[in-house]
Amino acid sequence: MQSIEKIVMIGAGNLATNLAVALHNNGLQIVQIVNRTLDNAEKLAEKVNAKFTDDYDGINDKADLYIIAVSDDSICELLGKLNLRDKLVIHTAGSIDMEVLHAFSNKYGIFYPLQTFSKNEIISFENIPVCIEANTVEYETVLFQLGEKLSNNVHKVSSEQRKILHVAAVFASNFSSYLYLIADKILSDNNMSFDLLKPLIFRTAEKIQSQATENALTGPARRNDTAVLQAHLQLLENLPEYQQIYNLISNSIVKHFHQS
Amino acid sequence: MQSIEKIVMIGAGNLATNLAVALHNNGLQIVQIVNRTLDNAEKLAEKVNAKFTDDYDGINDKADLYIIAVSDDSICELLGKLNLRDKLVIHTAGSIDMEVLHAFSNKYGIFYPLQTFSKNEIISFENIPVCIEANTVEYETVLFQLGEKLSNNVHKVSSEQRKILHVAAVFASNFSSYLYLIADKILSDNNMSFDLLKPLIFRTAEKIQSQATENALTGPARRNDTAVLQAHLQLLENLPEYQQIYNLISNSIVKHFHQS
Repeated sequence: MQSIEKIVMIGAGNLATNLAVALHNNGLQIVQIVNRTLDNAEKLAEKVNAKFTDDYDGINDKADLYIIAVSDDSICELLGKLNLRDKLVIHTAGSIDMEVLHAFSNKYGIFYPLQTFSKNEIISFENIPVCIEANTVEYETVLFQLGEKLSNNVHKVSSEQRKILHVAAVFASNFSSYLYLIADKILSDNNMSFDLLKPLIFRTAEKIQSQATENALTGPARRNDTAVLQAHLQLLENLPEYQQIYNLISNSIVKHFHQS
Repeated sequence: MQSIEKIVMIGAGNLATNLAVALHNNGLQIVQIVNRTLDNAEKLAEKVNAKFTDDYDGINDKADLYIIAVSDDSICELLGKLNLRDKLVIHTAGSIDMEVLHAFSNKYGIFYPLQTFSKNEIISFENIPVCIEANTVEYETVLFQLGEKLSNNVHKVSSEQRKILHVAAVFASNFSSYLYLIADKILSDNNMSFDLLKPLIFRTAEKIQSQATENALTGPARRNDTAVLQAHLQLLENLPEYQQIYNLISNSIVKHFHQS
């Protein structure tokens, strides 16, 4: 069975950066960073002691694994530029079917870490769920073992399941982040600091680590406190977009807990 | 200036329980728990070594402070049953104006801890923002000092500001909790475990402690990745309520980051 030592990372964004550093820190060799923006390729290459290029024809052909870690909407265009026919090629995107890789290689799979990443804050992969899929049992094992070098939370997940996970993650993470942004905007419009909400936000996420989602929810909509709900909608009168979001989510909470 | 030693707690819910325990643990004496359900009064009274009653006429009249810690929608009805004319009376609700207390006492104020509480999980008040308001400077100082016994994060906040804080907190905490619940439902409908999302949820809240809300957001709507957004809406076809929430929040994110 093939074992992974040398890796080419294609991409240099938030996920590519965190993944390359995690692989590097766990003894894998990142031989090359390939990225359309040379400057970003260089920045990541420095972090993991790799060579770098913005030339897709200049990709190192001696690596054991080629990781495409670019945004979901760039993958298909990018694949057309690569020549990796006999190489093990994987992507890291939440919503792209594994089989898009079929036309470009005969050895392919998925390595999807379910986490939100920032280039500027490198985090440990230790507890991050890593979702693995591959076109053969052999490559699945290879990728699973690679995952286990980084994380104690590796799972076999089909493309269909991965898409479901991704949409659930959008609700739980992206949309929560946007609600934090709305709260920030409401406070700054009224000359108050977002810092006041930070302990609450942290505790809300901490609570869900041990309590059932059905039990963790508190607040006026949970209690169906119509007087407070009306007062809040009135407070948001000058922010109609946020008022609409408040209304839709509150109604959904009331329906969930009081009308079902 | 009056100093607080003996306290009557009116209410025995999530907030009342956490606040009574915090006061008790910090050397204050909870002399009595008053609650419409005797059973809950007794449970809390045991935790803080207090007497308890469900009889509003039997309230101990020798305390230095009377804390009304019931839900926002119960306060006004409750006030009609109390006889605390010359007592220092405060409430802990996010959305109820301080002046509702004016008709019932000549010494009154607010002690609003900005946090989500559960009876079953007692947490420290150390970092919780506590918002103080009172009808005189003297009582404001008394309450501020009481707050500082529990927390290093005490603030003078007007009733108007407190209402704004409360609506922002609903977005940041209650609505996030509901998004966790939606994510849980989507996963369980597809036989996957909500545990897979816990590291992501924790990290999303952790990220916001140090990063600006404008920078922390990632995902398909942030990138205006219309192919993924469409695919997600299609995946949610059998969950029209969640689909509507997905659509509204995604559109708002796209508008915020790409059309302003």
